[in-house]
Amino acid sequence: MTNTEPLVEVWRGPFCESLHHGHAVIWDAGGDIVAAWGDPEAVILPRSSCKMVQALPLVESGAAEAFGLTDAQLALACASHQGAHVHTDMVEAWLADLGLSQEALRCGPQMPNDRDARNELIRGYREPGQSHNNCSGKHSGFLTLGRHLGAGPEYVDTDHPVQLAVKAAFEEVTGEDSPGHGIDGCSAPNFACTMTGLARAMAGFAAATGDGDPRDQAQFRLTRAMAAYPHLVAGEGRACTILMRAMNGRASIKTGAEAVFVGILPEQKLGIAVKIEDGTTRGAEAVITQLLIGAGVLAADHPAAIRYRHGPILNRRGIETGAYRISDSLADWRL
Amino acid sequence: MTNTEPLVEVWRGPFCESLHHGHAVIWDAGGDIVAAWGDPEAVILPRSSCKMVQALPLVESGAAEAFGLTDAQLALACASHQGAHVHTDMVEAWLADLGLSQEALRCGPQMPNDRDARNELIRGYREPGQSHNNCSGKHSGFLTLGRHLGAGPEYVDTDHPVQLAVKAAFEEVTGEDSPGHGIDGCSAPNFACTMTGLARAMAGFAAATGDGDPRDQAQFRLTRAMAAYPHLVAGEGRACTILMRAMNGRASIKTGAEAVFVGILPEQKLGIAVKIEDGTTRGAEAVITQLLIGAGVLAADHPAAIRYRHGPILNRRGIETGAYRISDSLADWRL
Repeated sequence: MTNTEPLVEVWRGPFCESLHHGHAVIWDAGGDIVAAWGDPEAVILPRSSCKMVQALPLVESGAAEAFGLTDAQLALACASHQGAHVHTDMVEAWLADLGLSQEALRCGPQMPNDRDARNELIRGYREPGQSHNNCSGKHSGFLTLGRHLGAGPEYVDTDHPVQLAVKAAFEEVTGEDSPGHGIDGCSAPNFACTMTGLARAMAGFAAATGDGDPRDQAQFRLTRAMAAYPHLVAGEGRACTILMRAMNGRASIKTGAEAVFVGILPEQKLGIAVKIEDGTTRGAEAVITQLLIGAGVLAADHPAAIRYRHGPILNRRGIETGAYRISDSLADWRL
Repeated sequence: MTNTEPLVEVWRGPFCESLHHGHAVIWDAGGDIVAAWGDPEAVILPRSSCKMVQALPLVESGAAEAFGLTDAQLALACASHQGAHVHTDMVEAWLADLGLSQEALRCGPQMPNDRDARNELIRGYREPGQSHNNCSGKHSGFLTLGRHLGAGPEYVDTDHPVQLAVKAAFEEVTGEDSPGHGIDGCSAPNFACTMTGLARAMAGFAAATGDGDPRDQAQFRLTRAMAAYPHLVAGEGRACTILMRAMNGRASIKTGAEAVFVGILPEQKLGIAVKIEDGTTRGAEAVITQLLIGAGVLAADHPAAIRYRHGPILNRRGIETGAYRISDSLADWRL
């Protein structure tokens, strides 16, 4: 983490109370860097922002077709979902189609962020299950690919055929040899890449036409699946869902833990990668929102755009206490 | 926010995934800077870290004595509590002693962080009240002072006698004219100061003997009240409570929103102020823990010390995915 750039200020009254530094890269599918802030060569862990990359082998192997997966299921495979019923019901039906239960998942249990689902568990004195884990769609995809490959049940092991396929796809679309991996919150390996590598991968998705090779077809289908089902990719109240709805399918975006955010812009054939150095989600949300506006796919005066790049920040009585301010270098950028 | 210093790295496997920059100042009650990282002249909003300063007028005015407040109530006046019954029951009894109810509070409602209290509300289909607000003890103190002063009910107004008294005390103990204020999450004004000013204020509390003027007596009593009731200052599972218990009363510490942390070390007559630039609590917790170890009031091998300055960071299956690393410049410091 070096050579970051100040990107988002958090103001309270007349004071800049906190500040987020980070990196951002916009990459053109033609192979050029369009714009960059911070260090485009910084190595990061993309975390959940690369779930559409982790889903590539599921589609291009033919597993998705063989198991009759719908676009909604593919959107869920790319999701960090809220654990609402709309998400967990689909995961549980998917697992049942495979003749499996939640026990086959290796993501671990997670209390759902969806308020109704959480309250239902609490009122029933029940613990959350693995289907509530925000990554359970991705893991259902892993299980499907594993079944298609005839591989064993421990699909998050780094040397399992599923993860070997994910690593190969990841290195191909980032255009880099990954320097290693960390273990993600959901126990799957998460491969490292540069900021440029992540933006390049997203540009590849953006440029897919759907009538090329299996990789192109998979990238095209996954990008459209995400854009078609914003509420499956995250959920009510979440930035991915709210901003994708605001863009009416003009871009597919995805958050990742520790303040990563990516964007896939098919009209412009651009990929965007954002990482806030300190891992704070509000910073990454503000930056991706600004870049989507700058790229012309999100209206600056849309309530969602105002909410994520400006605020206001409200306190517990609903009083406006402050706002975000985007750095000039970011705010001035236009495609 | 300028001239910060890298203080805490967040590692996942072989990668430094996130990084927290910040400021820290250690001030001696004799009037000298003992050590500093980042910019000791940086202006910050101390947020809830200065609640013991906001409680000074309550004690030194004679209001605490006139209303027979216990040390437990004073600890609660300095608290950012969890909204557990142990906290809310005391707040509601305190308000009843004043002939008031929650309606008199101006902090706004907040869902308690205490799991049992939250689940009880959810199971009863009830909304949280203002007594659940983590600042409700501070506000009970404000109401008590307001009653003592014969002032009106809108005690969070900047020109209310309570806030004028708070501002005067704040400027005196920080040794600075405050450059202004922001509105806090609880709607009270929060006065700005430099990092040095905040550390100087804490050193003043540390040096209090209890047999001096009303300010000295108030500082002494508040410091001991915090140390005597760690579970009232925050609550189960929280850093303030866990670390104060680990130190057996040798220091009083307090967190504030947006990653502020302060320490009062009576044996050493030292004050500590910490601010992580990006506002991330984990960073402030790691830094204050390291400084308490360096100052000799917290054992480096105490489980609480290891937890907050090192980790491990666990994922949803309990697998160790990473750890914190303190910067050398911080880790090498010893009093």
